[in-house]
Amino acid sequence: MRINSERLWLRLMAMAKIGAINNNGVNRQALSCEEHQSWVLMAEWARLTGLEIRTDEAANLFICCPGADRELPPLLLGSHLDSQPTGGRFDGVYGVLAALEVLCSYRDHGITPRCDLMAVAWMNEEGSRFAPGMMGSSWFAGSRSIESIRAVRDQQGMSAGEAIDQMHHMFPEFPLWRPSLSPAGYLEVHIEQATVLENHQAIIGAVTGIQGKHTWQVTIQGESGHAGTVPMKDRQDSLAIFSQLATSLYQQVGGFDSQVMFTIGWLEVLPNAPSVIPQQVSFRIDLRHPHPQHLRQLADLTEQLLSGVSLHAIVNTTRLSEAAPNTFDPQLQQWITDSAEQHGWPVMPVLSAAGHDARYLSEICPSAMIFIPCRAGISHSPEEWAEPEHVAAGAQVLADVIGNMLAGMQ
Amino acid sequence: MRINSERLWLRLMAMAKIGAINNNGVNRQALSCEEHQSWVLMAEWARLTGLEIRTDEAANLFICCPGADRELPPLLLGSHLDSQPTGGRFDGVYGVLAALEVLCSYRDHGITPRCDLMAVAWMNEEGSRFAPGMMGSSWFAGSRSIESIRAVRDQQGMSAGEAIDQMHHMFPEFPLWRPSLSPAGYLEVHIEQATVLENHQAIIGAVTGIQGKHTWQVTIQGESGHAGTVPMKDRQDSLAIFSQLATSLYQQVGGFDSQVMFTIGWLEVLPNAPSVIPQQVSFRIDLRHPHPQHLRQLADLTEQLLSGVSLHAIVNTTRLSEAAPNTFDPQLQQWITDSAEQHGWPVMPVLSAAGHDARYLSEICPSAMIFIPCRAGISHSPEEWAEPEHVAAGAQVLADVIGNMLAGMQ
Repeated sequence: MRINSERLWLRLMAMAKIGAINNNGVNRQALSCEEHQSWVLMAEWARLTGLEIRTDEAANLFICCPGADRELPPLLLGSHLDSQPTGGRFDGVYGVLAALEVLCSYRDHGITPRCDLMAVAWMNEEGSRFAPGMMGSSWFAGSRSIESIRAVRDQQGMSAGEAIDQMHHMFPEFPLWRPSLSPAGYLEVHIEQATVLENHQAIIGAVTGIQGKHTWQVTIQGESGHAGTVPMKDRQDSLAIFSQLATSLYQQVGGFDSQVMFTIGWLEVLPNAPSVIPQQVSFRIDLRHPHPQHLRQLADLTEQLLSGVSLHAIVNTTRLSEAAPNTFDPQLQQWITDSAEQHGWPVMPVLSAAGHDARYLSEICPSAMIFIPCRAGISHSPEEWAEPEHVAAGAQVLADVIGNMLAGMQ
Repeated sequence: MRINSERLWLRLMAMAKIGAINNNGVNRQALSCEEHQSWVLMAEWARLTGLEIRTDEAANLFICCPGADRELPPLLLGSHLDSQPTGGRFDGVYGVLAALEVLCSYRDHGITPRCDLMAVAWMNEEGSRFAPGMMGSSWFAGSRSIESIRAVRDQQGMSAGEAIDQMHHMFPEFPLWRPSLSPAGYLEVHIEQATVLENHQAIIGAVTGIQGKHTWQVTIQGESGHAGTVPMKDRQDSLAIFSQLATSLYQQVGGFDSQVMFTIGWLEVLPNAPSVIPQQVSFRIDLRHPHPQHLRQLADLTEQLLSGVSLHAIVNTTRLSEAAPNTFDPQLQQWITDSAEQHGWPVMPVLSAAGHDARYLSEICPSAMIFIPCRAGISHSPEEWAEPEHVAAGAQVLADVIGNMLAGMQ
């Protein structure tokens, strides 16, 4: 079964207009007005094709192509519609629209799948508005309670719970759904966000797993005071303490080896006034490494450097997440490779450096991911770009593997 | 003539309720809704005493006690009503209310001063909302154009010009005033914001001058990217570059000697999302030193360290201000000392480490400042505190010196 790659590309470009910012970028944060608009468009496409629409307690969005036997556990395929504040046109949304394209292709060809096929858009993968991310998929997989998710607040003080309720109120016609059985499997197609495929001139990546990731929120409590009158020796300048600490972290943790990823992406200074000594600096650490033992070692080193500072300042460290590396289903990886080879598309195994919703799904059902290259590995940026023929190839492999999974059910 | 120190204290505590925040703090930023409310209260007190009210093109507020000869240049006394975002109950507002108290005392005693006595609240001394500060006094003294002031925008994008217009629209009954002659003199009473007076158990400081201050805005332009996929060696992480630069600045500039003051009080990260490599870091440097040649040397060192970074990253440096140390009028300093000694209050000469509106006034007329101690030297903080008897003493010295200045005119 061939998918309609032209329709997929047109929908991708249409969705890129929702939350569009300068230079082809997208700002479509979780549960925002922009994500709400993206649901309107999704619902329109679903209705055109006669597909069912559902949501759930965590405001995940499901588009369902009903199967011949509706008692069977469903097959899920998807990704997320939310983006970073300065995101691009492919990260997440490509996987959702490729999934929708597979469902629409089944309808075009008049094929009824054996079980329900569900295209899903997971709530808040990015974690930029409500941190940490992957809220919808972690709740769906039973890794996180709805209460802990609802309690998280954004910078404006709105809770994720209030934002979820708003989303539900906007779409009262979507029934709330909770599957009685674990899904039969989960597949996600995504841009690679790295240059391994590009460097090897591969078009398809059969993702072997996701590297581990630890995140922390840290607050350094200093003392405010007048920038012109408090002698340097009497200061507890939280930004000065941060600068020294961060320099050590970047050098010792970030310089550990060529595979570590160390980032401080978010930082807030209080009161943040030009002539006031900073009273408080809060920041988030994102640490990743493909090897579990090295990741553990680096996490220990990070906490050791943080506690070293706490000898001469008040430092509060909260661990936000701690995910070990995971491995995807070998049979699904094999089918991805087989599909690509049948089409003559260069394919290779690849590790995902970024986190994805598939991490959580892999805990409850056979799961896998398909990567396609993105130009220069750039993502989380308006410059994000994937070639139309790669976009088409990834979606076709997705359809092929779904076909294999359904055939395996007979 | 004795001032009414009880009335002064009650007004100080009443004004502390306008913009009150937790723990006795005050957030009354320039041209804000809170500063507007403080004008309402000032106007009420002025009307009760039959004083005239005026404003000007820069939204400075003037309360005038008319003199016997209204053709003479006026005597100005005052300070500012705006505060830092986490400010206290004394910085600025004390000087304005002490000035008002002197005018009210003249009325109470039925004395008509020789020339107009004007209590003034200068617009935006603090510079926390619109930077740099001392906007009203620098414009009044001819050091800055109204156009350059009106063009400055706050973090929400509102221009100082729009905020000035709003203030004028709220008080259409206050005539716009511009003195045809330079003032006859300017006096400002203020908390010390340092511990020199406290350490010497002095109650009155005869301020000799204000230490010099240089400020810069710096932007480090890096490259954003995904925190999990861009190898450390390929990153242009603007926050990592900042941390290393700031560590050098704190060590080399901030550690120069025991008199230097080096502060980075304001910093902004873009896009500021936990899993995105920071694309841009902007920050402000505040550098002060009492000795002109050392200040010059430290400013050069600062710019040298900044340009060192620009070899491997894009760094834009804009100088915001460059003020050399200034010296107050010796005769006025002498009268301050004489007054304190007559009352039996320990008095000493003291240098102001903080900047004040009096710096600009001293360029156009004989000017001076009177300091009183504040507890532990703490200011720009809710913990700011001055003893009621010191508050009274400072205002009495102010009244005495105004008396000397008026007598000198006969």
